Amino acid sequence: MATLEFFWDPGSPYSYLASTQIEGLVARTGVEVVWRPVLVGVIMKAAGTHPNIESPAKGAYMMQDLALCARRYGVPLRRPDPFPTSPVIAERLALAAPPALQPALARGIMRAHWGEGRDIAQPEVLRAVVETLGLDSAAVFARTQDPEIKNTLRANTDEAVARGAFGAPTFFLGAQMFWGCDRLPHIEEILRGELVAE
Amino acid sequence: MATLEFFWDPGSPYSYLASTQIEGLVARTGVEVVWRPVLVGVIMKAAGTHPNIESPAKGAYMMQDLALCARRYGVPLRRPDPFPTSPVIAERLALAAPPALQPALARGIMRAHWGEGRDIAQPEVLRAVVETLGLDSAAVFARTQDPEIKNTLRANTDEAVARGAFGAPTFFLGAQMFWGCDRLPHIEEILRGELVAE
Repeated sequence: MATLEFFWDPGSPYSYLASTQIEGLVARTGVEVVWRPVLVGVIMKAAGTHPNIESPAKGAYMMQDLALCARRYGVPLRRPDPFPTSPVIAERLALAAPPALQPALARGIMRAHWGEGRDIAQPEVLRAVVETLGLDSAAVFARTQDPEIKNTLRANTDEAVARGAFGAPTFFLGAQMFWGCDRLPHIEEILRGELVAE
Repeated sequence: MATLEFFWDPGSPYSYLASTQIEGLVARTGVEVVWRPVLVGVIMKAAGTHPNIESPAKGAYMMQDLALCARRYGVPLRRPDPFPTSPVIAERLALAAPPALQPALARGIMRAHWGEGRDIAQPEVLRAVVETLGLDSAAVFARTQDPEIKNTLRANTDEAVARGAFGAPTFFLGAQMFWGCDRLPHIEEILRGELVAE
């Protein structure tokens, strides 16, 4: 069975859009997806790339493109306010949950941020997402302070940089990297044997 | 009948990839395509965006992604040497040809550069493309010095910036802008009435 690594950051709207498409991809292909949170700001700084909103023209287009992509997928989209916000606690939470629930928590965090426009730096926003999954939020929040959790987030980020990432979402099928939600069709075609990977 | 404006620069490999898909789009949707060369370097400077190759990680990925996209489309891809090269004479040539042949000349220029890896700053490379279309290359080359041709290239570029472009390829359906070869499916779905435009 093939494994797809999905490096995501909740501050990245295209990570959110990708997160809404993963269950369908799994259902159609049987691929196993490993959800790995990263700090995309650290990755971009290391790789020498720039946030879309740094260019007013590109930032304006991004909001229009996101709206079109969300309509195309049939998923909600609402620009967060404030934006950007700190993703660190949200990402640590996704790592602090029991492994079987981490993908659902990741999806819930990104949906709260980009589907509902909520500020995921606010503990009460995160607590609601955690509790939707039936988890003890106090226990999961307490784990966000574990050095192991902090180290995993940093190690994921460093590994992504070392493997050539420069933004998010970034996917790996084995050694082959893919950047952006719009490469999910390429990944699916490779998994189906319709497109030859590198 | 809908009209699609296609702002292209032969130095942009995703403009090349898009150029290989336009005839199919026209056949399937009946859209009228207006091919408009622009100087993408001027657009990016005005918009504050950055060439992919400025980041070693992004530049390396771009070459891998281009190869995969070309394989997916079934079109040739060969990294030009030298790259980048000056696109100015090539773009003026595309404007200097008779209007009915300009799309074919644009496609030929981009195929020579990105499909065959040729240096489109070299007159003999361009002459071969022009002559493939049965044109008098001396006459078309002479027209590249006309102030009207030079002005049109600059005016296309300025207009693209004024309308919000920040890279290439850039498409417009009326006022709605689309960036990148990977938005052609969105454009097609809008033309078919399957996706609601902004």
